[in-house]
Amino acid sequence: MSERNFESLRQRLAEFAAERDWDQFHSPKNLAMALAAEVGELLEHLQWLSEAQSKALTEERRAEISLELADIQLYLVRLADKLGVDLVAAAHRKIGINASRYPVDKARGHARKYTEL
Amino acid sequence: MSERNFESLRQRLAEFAAERDWDQFHSPKNLAMALAAEVGELLEHLQWLSEAQSKALTEERRAEISLELADIQLYLVRLADKLGVDLVAAAHRKIGINASRYPVDKARGHARKYTEL
Amino acid sequence: MSERNFESLRQRLAEFAAERDWDQFHSPKNLAMALAAEVGELLEHLQWLSEAQSKALTEERRAEISLELADIQLYLVRLADKLGVDLVAAAHRKIGINASRYPVDKARGHARKYTEL
Amino acid sequence: MSERNFESLRQRLAEFAAERDWDQFHSPKNLAMALAAEVGELLEHLQWLSEAQSKALTEERRAEISLELADIQLYLVRLADKLGVDLVAAAHRKIGINASRYPVDKARGHARKYTEL
Repeated sequence: MSERNFESLRQRLAEFAAERDWDQFHSPKNLAMALAAEVGELLEHLQWLSEAQSKALTEERRAEISLELADIQLYLVRLADKLGVDLVAAAHRKIGINASRYPVDKARGHARKYTEL
Repeated sequence: MSERNFESLRQRLAEFAAERDWDQFHSPKNLAMALAAEVGELLEHLQWLSEAQSKALTEERRAEISLELADIQLYLVRLADKLGVDLVAAAHRKIGINASRYPVDKARGHARKYTEL
Repeated sequence: MSERNFESLRQRLAEFAAERDWDQFHSPKNLAMALAAEVGELLEHLQWLSEAQSKALTEERRAEISLELADIQLYLVRLADKLGVDLVAAAHRKIGINASRYPVDKARGHARKYTEL
Repeated sequence: MSERNFESLRQRLAEFAAERDWDQFHSPKNLAMALAAEVGELLEHLQWLSEAQSKALTEERRAEISLELADIQLYLVRLADKLGVDLVAAAHRKIGINASRYPVDKARGHARKYTEL
């Protein structure tokens, strides 16, 4: 078996879908909806917790949430694959964009949007 | 500079937040909301497209969407970091769970939930 | 019992929360998260359906979805109540705004955003 | 013009879409996505606020949020209309279901899900 790194997720998911004849369902539109539905499950875990509680989860809750994060990651990888997007490269590029939108001296210590700096 | 791989995203985001004194805002609860808001932006790109159109995006639209995917990936990495979750390991583990929930012979060719197989 | 109209939803929900001592959880932030989580459940019903299928639901599926819509409506009423927002007035006002953003002659027959008309 | 009550929203939105030939885009699937995207905009307003801050919004922020709530309400009405769902009746019915799921004596003072009571 290939190494269990980030890069191998794409290939494993492609095989998973092919074996089940699921490519017919995996349009970008549908995958985006499925991703959003998984994010809803993540929110459900956190909606009634205070911020402080969300930083001090029980181990059981943390394990449940880690599987929700996994679901989100999987749909994100699958969607990027279907769109031909290099997710890691795009993410690094976006950090660069954010760095220029949020210069340290203007953005420090508050959460205003870059359009309001 | 470190290699621009998936693993280095975590560290770059941690530094980004530290430099701007943003850890105060990055509770898991808040990060989950921010992640969900980014997913909303992704949906906006795709909401009025047919599935077929979502498979044949203009290059301009595809570039815009790739940055939305990047935003989602960045918040996901940041949230996992704050929760102490190994995202890649969790994602691989979840593929294994999905494989047992959706055996090939029962899941092939339709999109029913595993609870309805 | 009061009439079962839209206006009475607000009062019934306020009483529901008060009886259970739930106002402590019903900050606007939390209610917005809960609303978003319910929307995730709605999406889950529709994510693998084609548009055509979403127009021709089985009666069972339609009944399930109607309860998801109800959940969304209830959190929306509750959130508006907590913020002191008159939801119906705001909705009518927004139709007016949309009418000026999307003049019939410019918006007919396509789904471009008003910023791109 | 008809009264600006909840019931007239449905009719105004149907006319709005008909005038612009937008029914072609208003499949339940698409409307659910658009609804979710609007919820994302709501979340964006609240994501970095503490719960306390979300209870004490500036008037400007409250006005912005009221228009996001309006957008959500409008898509919800439109989606229910397309599905032939009576939103108000469903919402009242759901309060009844919730009342039996969350009996006062078991649900008071905490936010556990009904499946965990």
